[in-house]
Amino acid sequence: MNKKISKPPVDLPGGFIDRKEKELVIRDFLIKQIKEVMTKYGFEFLETPSFEYTESLGKFLPDKDRPSEGVFSFEDSKKWLSLRYDLTAPLARFTAKNFDNLPRPFKRYQLGTVWRNEKPGPGRFREFLQFDADYVGTSNLLADSELCVLISEILEKCGLANNEFNIKISNRKLSKGLLEELNITDQNQQSISLRAIDKLDRVGIEGVRLLLGKGRKDKSGDFTDGAQLEENQIKKIIEFLNSKDLNQLEQIGCKNKLFEEGINELKQIIKNFDFFKFNNFKIDPTVVRGLEYYTGPIFEAELTFKVKNEKGAEIEFGSIGGGGRYDDLVKRFKNQECPATGISIGLDRLLYALNQKNIFNFNQKSPVLICVLDEKYMDYYFKILNLLRLNNINSEIYSGSSNFKAQLKYADKRNCKYVIICGEDEVSKELITLKNLVIGSKVSEDIKSREDWTQSKDAQKTFAFSNLLKEISK
Amino acid sequence: MNKKISKPPVDLPGGFIDRKEKELVIRDFLIKQIKEVMTKYGFEFLETPSFEYTESLGKFLPDKDRPSEGVFSFEDSKKWLSLRYDLTAPLARFTAKNFDNLPRPFKRYQLGTVWRNEKPGPGRFREFLQFDADYVGTSNLLADSELCVLISEILEKCGLANNEFNIKISNRKLSKGLLEELNITDQNQQSISLRAIDKLDRVGIEGVRLLLGKGRKDKSGDFTDGAQLEENQIKKIIEFLNSKDLNQLEQIGCKNKLFEEGINELKQIIKNFDFFKFNNFKIDPTVVRGLEYYTGPIFEAELTFKVKNEKGAEIEFGSIGGGGRYDDLVKRFKNQECPATGISIGLDRLLYALNQKNIFNFNQKSPVLICVLDEKYMDYYFKILNLLRLNNINSEIYSGSSNFKAQLKYADKRNCKYVIICGEDEVSKELITLKNLVIGSKVSEDIKSREDWTQSKDAQKTFAFSNLLKEISK
Repeated sequence: MNKKISKPPVDLPGGFIDRKEKELVIRDFLIKQIKEVMTKYGFEFLETPSFEYTESLGKFLPDKDRPSEGVFSFEDSKKWLSLRYDLTAPLARFTAKNFDNLPRPFKRYQLGTVWRNEKPGPGRFREFLQFDADYVGTSNLLADSELCVLISEILEKCGLANNEFNIKISNRKLSKGLLEELNITDQNQQSISLRAIDKLDRVGIEGVRLLLGKGRKDKSGDFTDGAQLEENQIKKIIEFLNSKDLNQLEQIGCKNKLFEEGINELKQIIKNFDFFKFNNFKIDPTVVRGLEYYTGPIFEAELTFKVKNEKGAEIEFGSIGGGGRYDDLVKRFKNQECPATGISIGLDRLLYALNQKNIFNFNQKSPVLICVLDEKYMDYYFKILNLLRLNNINSEIYSGSSNFKAQLKYADKRNCKYVIICGEDEVSKELITLKNLVIGSKVSEDIKSREDWTQSKDAQKTFAFSNLLKEISK
Repeated sequence: MNKKISKPPVDLPGGFIDRKEKELVIRDFLIKQIKEVMTKYGFEFLETPSFEYTESLGKFLPDKDRPSEGVFSFEDSKKWLSLRYDLTAPLARFTAKNFDNLPRPFKRYQLGTVWRNEKPGPGRFREFLQFDADYVGTSNLLADSELCVLISEILEKCGLANNEFNIKISNRKLSKGLLEELNITDQNQQSISLRAIDKLDRVGIEGVRLLLGKGRKDKSGDFTDGAQLEENQIKKIIEFLNSKDLNQLEQIGCKNKLFEEGINELKQIIKNFDFFKFNNFKIDPTVVRGLEYYTGPIFEAELTFKVKNEKGAEIEFGSIGGGGRYDDLVKRFKNQECPATGISIGLDRLLYALNQKNIFNFNQKSPVLICVLDEKYMDYYFKILNLLRLNNINSEIYSGSSNFKAQLKYADKRNCKYVIICGEDEVSKELITLKNLVIGSKVSEDIKSREDWTQSKDAQKTFAFSNLLKEISK
């Protein structure tokens, strides 16, 4: 009748997806592991809301140049609200608000959705579930070191072997100090240079060289302006990026004070790792981390195995998480020194990668289906249902309106292992007929021998009601 | 230096709050109970995203008249997106999208935040965590009945006794049929009348009488226009609202077909309750449920004990959850009959009410604190830490930069039960000094007798490193 009225869309806006049981059950498992590790390490659980005043969140996202600035914002009685783009900015706001009542260091963890108003594309989501752990109110590098150990323990608890990931560490003070040493003082030149380094993954070392110099044309022909550095400056930066350990970093001969501070902090962190008996890390000056609020040590957890996309092609997966020190973030709110450091793990990404390892034995939670052959036997069906549920056996009475054949199809679609089929005979004699759909489907594929036939009998059994629990628990 | 630059706000926008560990741990417990019940009842876990196209969500919220329509909306490449205001509208969209692949009935549950862009006020939040369970694709009233049983089992698992809540049931067909019978056919008059009934909780039966008639002036002097019904019409509606059971409902003598359908459906639901051995319900025609998409049976879970606000005053708490049948929601997207029914529980509200019963023994998860008396003993402190954590004992080395006294204050603020204090003596002899802060604080309050003195010694003990686990597990 109203066929002509246009229907609302059934599709989701780009960058958003529906998630089904299998993924959610594994995600619950990951979350459980994380919570256990966090409690063991002495962290408190906190949850800030999804909205904050836009001003409180501040502007620390990379790619500032886009008009929407990467956040979802709403005007509300003349003030702007935004959905959080990370869990760190809200933590800084929370700390400033509760400054006098919090223990220092304040060790908190949080799990929550964050939103990025980015241009959606394949594999690019606009909301994702993130886990964060932070130390607020301490400059002690024990905190930074422990965060690397902790992220590593979480990844192991979630099913990764020690050789399937490692933690790359660097220090913002190194790149900043080096630029100072090279007399790159122009703010714009500085930030183009840092962004160039951050793009190493995508454009390679030659791409970075171009971006530090005159600029770079990408495959599509688009030209990105470079930082216009001189040849000797570029050479030094490339030398820096190619350093694989503390020795090589020291050999580039940068005498800048900030740079030396950065080196010393890394030495202290490595000393602490030793205390933790932790050695699954490497120094990597190419680590930059996108967010602009970092001030000191930075870390990144990297997978060492290949990850494939949905089409089966290997992809550059990038990091699974990371973080760093952000000593000035609380100061935005309050004239008070409050050094801090933290890490994040992207749970959806972690799950995606873990799924490729096939390490999860997804526990099918499908119910035992009690078929309805006739409404008049409902009393008996409920007697069965109530007994099963009382014994915590997942079960249901078919609650649609279709015939027996459709009910079996339903059981199949639900991946039910068992169906219970009781008609006049069973009801009158207090019997149960139990059909094992797993054996049943295997056998019906090919009944060839006498043995198959016996199995086929196994697929369906009739027994006394009093044996129900015993038969099901087999 | 930059004191003059204005700081961003540390406060949250109205209607949003920070949630701390105690609340979150109890909430995790509730979620665990819910998931167990849902699995047992044969429901599948689903998660739709927080954003949908505004058009897909539709307009079903009460209080339509306000300008912002109750949702947070956002323009995105010329299409409007909104944050979901419930979990039902997204489920209808999901069902329409996956119609051919879903089992029917499709039994799904979801846990997720929903947002309402309402005028914030005391106790009125703009985001809350909701749990939903739905049957999609069945008109069988077994589904509706089971939802009431299930909500009841969840409340019991969460700690409520059978007499601390009950499930009120009604049917949208009753009120709709009665209005038809009374010849109230004007759409506007109909919806003012239904809204008047929905306000019964707040305005009382006399208030409803006024709102059905000429209108009502509230305490502040604001006047709300009435439905302008005639005296005999109002009388009949009030008689309907005062009915306490099926008998009384039948005695009002409404011969309308829809009304009779409504009565018969309630009879069937009660018959089903009997199968489930469920009797914690009552017929209550004053139940309306705010959302406009309901078409048949509706339910509401009500607490029977008094709930207090933060100032200790008893408040009208309203329902903890509810739901009903919405047979036309999937049809919005697809020319396909797809009857459905579902319930929601507001988890934050449930938690608030449960907290007043003091039934939760909140398990303090504070760590054992290992004090740092001197950096040079770090090796020994880590030996302790690594052993404790290996044995899953929550523990940490103090990671701030303050002196011993400040470390004890920190332990106090963290509610630590134990601190470990090792100086030169302990380290050189492989000893541990363990201080029990719980006994310690009790004793230091008043040492009066010899017994107190003995206890005070209990508060601090020194023993061999090898006895650490034994001593802590005491």
